[in-house]
Amino acid sequence: MSSSSNAGPALSHLDESGQVRMVDVSGKASTQRSAVAEGRVRMSPEAYRLLSAQENAKGEVLNTARIAGVLASKRCAELIPLCHSLPLSFVGIEFFPDDGASSITVRATCRTDYKTGVEMEAMTACSVAALTIYDMCKAADKGIVLEEIRLRHKSGGKSGEWSND
Amino acid sequence: MSSSSNAGPALSHLDESGQVRMVDVSGKASTQRSAVAEGRVRMSPEAYRLLSAQENAKGEVLNTARIAGVLASKRCAELIPLCHSLPLSFVGIEFFPDDGASSITVRATCRTDYKTGVEMEAMTACSVAALTIYDMCKAADKGIVLEEIRLRHKSGGKSGEWSND
Amino acid sequence: MSSSSNAGPALSHLDESGQVRMVDVSGKASTQRSAVAEGRVRMSPEAYRLLSAQENAKGEVLNTARIAGVLASKRCAELIPLCHSLPLSFVGIEFFPDDGASSITVRATCRTDYKTGVEMEAMTACSVAALTIYDMCKAADKGIVLEEIRLRHKSGGKSGEWSND
Amino acid sequence: MSSSSNAGPALSHLDESGQVRMVDVSGKASTQRSAVAEGRVRMSPEAYRLLSAQENAKGEVLNTARIAGVLASKRCAELIPLCHSLPLSFVGIEFFPDDGASSITVRATCRTDYKTGVEMEAMTACSVAALTIYDMCKAADKGIVLEEIRLRHKSGGKSGEWSND
Amino acid sequence: MSSSSNAGPALSHLDESGQVRMVDVSGKASTQRSAVAEGRVRMSPEAYRLLSAQENAKGEVLNTARIAGVLASKRCAELIPLCHSLPLSFVGIEFFPDDGASSITVRATCRTDYKTGVEMEAMTACSVAALTIYDMCKAADKGIVLEEIRLRHKSGGKSGEWSND
Amino acid sequence: MSSSSNAGPALSHLDESGQVRMVDVSGKASTQRSAVAEGRVRMSPEAYRLLSAQENAKGEVLNTARIAGVLASKRCAELIPLCHSLPLSFVGIEFFPDDGASSITVRATCRTDYKTGVEMEAMTACSVAALTIYDMCKAADKGIVLEEIRLRHKSGGKSGEWSND
Repeated sequence: MSSSSNAGPALSHLDESGQVRMVDVSGKASTQRSAVAEGRVRMSPEAYRLLSAQENAKGEVLNTARIAGVLASKRCAELIPLCHSLPLSFVGIEFFPDDGASSITVRATCRTDYKTGVEMEAMTACSVAALTIYDMCKAADKGIVLEEIRLRHKSGGKSGEWSND
Repeated sequence: MSSSSNAGPALSHLDESGQVRMVDVSGKASTQRSAVAEGRVRMSPEAYRLLSAQENAKGEVLNTARIAGVLASKRCAELIPLCHSLPLSFVGIEFFPDDGASSITVRATCRTDYKTGVEMEAMTACSVAALTIYDMCKAADKGIVLEEIRLRHKSGGKSGEWSND
Repeated sequence: MSSSSNAGPALSHLDESGQVRMVDVSGKASTQRSAVAEGRVRMSPEAYRLLSAQENAKGEVLNTARIAGVLASKRCAELIPLCHSLPLSFVGIEFFPDDGASSITVRATCRTDYKTGVEMEAMTACSVAALTIYDMCKAADKGIVLEEIRLRHKSGGKSGEWSND
Repeated sequence: MSSSSNAGPALSHLDESGQVRMVDVSGKASTQRSAVAEGRVRMSPEAYRLLSAQENAKGEVLNTARIAGVLASKRCAELIPLCHSLPLSFVGIEFFPDDGASSITVRATCRTDYKTGVEMEAMTACSVAALTIYDMCKAADKGIVLEEIRLRHKSGGKSGEWSND
Repeated sequence: MSSSSNAGPALSHLDESGQVRMVDVSGKASTQRSAVAEGRVRMSPEAYRLLSAQENAKGEVLNTARIAGVLASKRCAELIPLCHSLPLSFVGIEFFPDDGASSITVRATCRTDYKTGVEMEAMTACSVAALTIYDMCKAADKGIVLEEIRLRHKSGGKSGEWSND
Repeated sequence: MSSSSNAGPALSHLDESGQVRMVDVSGKASTQRSAVAEGRVRMSPEAYRLLSAQENAKGEVLNTARIAGVLASKRCAELIPLCHSLPLSFVGIEFFPDDGASSITVRATCRTDYKTGVEMEAMTACSVAALTIYDMCKAADKGIVLEEIRLRHKSGGKSGEWSND
């Protein structure tokens, strides 16, 4: 009686026998899609202070992390096995330092005109930008934590608008 | 009076003027080094249940994530701008599902005999494995969170053993 | 008197002077295209038996090979010099073990909506999946053979349906 | 009673529970190693004739295939999930056309001074060179077959000399 | 009074606060675009003579450089951080040896049907082809110079035809 | 009487029959090696002025170009077909703006402890950093020229010190 389509959400990357598969988007139309992912890099007050103390330091670190995030989003389909390659119309990486919490929030925004969503591109851009901040500050604090990396917003495609605030 | 070496930890990827740089490891000897990173993928009980309900599903998802993590660790220096390319002797990815918390902990272990540490390789392997789980389960829960990605242990090199438990 | 168009099939990647070139697809329309390639991995009965004897072994090996094949198809244009980069709508890798022959047939199916065919993507996916099986079984049999890798079917584009059974 | 070490060859990329793993080479010494792989590209007499008829054609096709094979061997660890990245000392690709059989044998030789063998690098170089020949001749014959891709020789490491002639 | 749009050309990859960004092409229509870049490899007469003296030498060197240039153009967006990934319809690399000047001019032509121009793809193809010639001739002359790499022509898109002769 | 070793410099990437080959470095010892390459990006006074006028602009552009150059040097062996993969100990990119000439000189320094030189890594880093400056300033001046890219210095290996000033 019940079928997978009745049963609510399913794992789209698994077929009936539980084997992995790429989702077939042959029949889908291209639409404008966007996704926003966010995560936070939390470090010790000492490491955070060092980032602010040296001339240019924070700007150079964040620009480097931004470049790393943009480049990673373009290579998302090489990293995440079942992602489709797609042409990104835009990738933006923003940083929101929080002096009180010694943390930096990373926000990645991706857009495409294509048949599938860009959630993974945004999540990957956010993660790699955060990893780059970790790399550049780890000499001061090996225990830096990447936390709360999650999708914040998506639009376009069958599921339309979705937000998680 | 104070110099950067007296001032405690510094940001090794920035020179005196605050510009980014790759650390010069020309003079360093190769030693056995290892690093362990961990992170957690927390999903809704419904998504977690789906992962367990279908035949083979969890095994296939986790094997796919493992492969993605291993491959990413080998390409770490392409993703993280100031990392050195290095020959990994070993990469291992383990998963620790927690049925009660609807979460899966990802542990990545990397080893090398080289002049620099493998923290970034372990952190990158862990992050990409977690992103792959996100990708394969996002049809059931777009709000899956990657949390507490951090270095747990490192050994080898000048700083010796370091743990964060 | 004779021209290359009269002379039957030509080598499209060579110009009049015999120098290599990428085919210009500027004027072509995007259509739905697919290609299926197959090849066979033939190993010793001993190696084949080992693959079946250990818990999970065949499933893990084949899932790893499937992931490798899917990833390779997405990077086909990086490997095959004169291939066009194109957005794959679907990649599927299936395995058909033949216990009697100690062999596994690998079938790769690729689809796109684009201006050129996806034969090379299917052939590359099939080859890399087969190479991955070789890699994971070579400790038991260095003499494993990859055989009869060929295109089985293509559809779409100017030449329409083509089969080789 | 029997253990895996008594039982003869095992699948080195699987642990006791049958899950995939990268082999740990941390403790191994670097030694000179080499591997030779061969495979054959068999085409229709018509396609083979075209390859010989046009000025420069065969030379340009084979040089292109050689370059593709060399480049692929250097990226073997990106393609084959559980391969170790290693520094190749030498990669050579040779071609042996057989006019009577309308086929070209591809031989790839790889060398390294490292802790693991270069079988996969040679097998990958051979396969990608063969795929490139297929790509450049497929306009004349879609049914070209890659056949008998196998390891021919290896030396160095624990298992020493091995040949398959 | 004045705004950036009045002020003539601006740096499109910088936002108002001077931070780098990828240009958003979400709203743009795909059109046929092309770009031609040229550069020159100037070597010593001795090195140039060697290139001509040995059987096949110049042809093999230039074919290798051509392949390298074509492959690099397809990976332009991986190299140049703020470039968009795009599907190239055509890449062509031509060489114009000048015996008197002991130099070889490299011309790269790229075409796409997409929302952004292909200047960077052509510039990158030209540069990497020139670097490959350098690599293959540097044993004879380490002082080889790459000179006057520049865009020669572009068409398509908002700015239409542009030439620089 | 005469042999290739008597005949002065030869093209090391070509064998006796003029076919391309990778140089075999199996027998060579690792030594400390370095290479410095320089090139110049010359733009219109108007474009150069824009680069200086906007807040942060020059710093952000040059940091982006620096990151691109560092990343490219690590992938040199993927771009230049006959280069050996090698582990870089250091990559540094410096910029020397010349306000009077509206140009920026790019200097790339690479170091390794390996069997072959790092000239190509330095040349590639310099070229890709220069291309990135071009990309970020081309909206203001499509006619920007990359000029005089050449090796300035190398040390280590059989040929010892070499300078070109």
